[in-house]
Amino acid sequence: MDPDAVAKAFVEHYYRTFDSSRAALGGLYQDASMLTFEGDKIQGAAAIVAKLSSLSFQQCVHAIATVDCQPSGPSGGMLVFVSGSLQLGGEQHPLKFSQMFHLMPMPQGSFYVLNDIFRLNYA
Amino acid sequence: MDPDAVAKAFVEHYYRTFDSSRAALGGLYQDASMLTFEGDKIQGAAAIVAKLSSLSFQQCVHAIATVDCQPSGPSGGMLVFVSGSLQLGGEQHPLKFSQMFHLMPMPQGSFYVLNDIFRLNYA
Repeated sequence: MDPDAVAKAFVEHYYRTFDSSRAALGGLYQDASMLTFEGDKIQGAAAIVAKLSSLSFQQCVHAIATVDCQPSGPSGGMLVFVSGSLQLGGEQHPLKFSQMFHLMPMPQGSFYVLNDIFRLNYA
Repeated sequence: MDPDAVAKAFVEHYYRTFDSSRAALGGLYQDASMLTFEGDKIQGAAAIVAKLSSLSFQQCVHAIATVDCQPSGPSGGMLVFVSGSLQLGGEQHPLKFSQMFHLMPMPQGSFYVLNDIFRLNYA
């Protein structure tokens, strides 16, 4: 499978999981994982899921606009850069965002998220 | 020097160089470096500088809005995520952009750019 297809499949899986069941995102992170969410730094799968689950909206739907990916060096990792928009339940207008993931390979052939940085596109 | 300060110093140096003398950016990339610019993938310092130098505007000024950084694993690398805006000469309105850099350490203590992904924030 080519890297662009892997990146696209990962991103679709990630946001589908985020939009349907945020707690299930824990399986995509590990203890060494780090999330920077709007400037807040959070380390470890459990703390990251707690942060994402605590966000004040109940419903959201991500729409992906672009997915760029590059190999990230000799480790077999991959950098994925996403732009898109986020429709929150009860809000009239979608919010635009950019997010990057540093994916690391696991022995069974899938990937986990080592680094994750999220920013709303400022107005 | 703490990582956030290193990232901020790198980003300021990068855009100051971009805005004053794009050809001088070559010193920040190596042969293994990759740039994805609005979806175009370019590999190697020489090709990257050729691409950046070929962009059709003559004058530009970057303004940085946010800089986020994380360590990128055991290699001593660093991921830097930037949002900001770009004022092109002769254009009335600035363009918003997001960009990520994967910085790798060099023996003399500085960093080079291994991965670079740039996207204008779509309207």
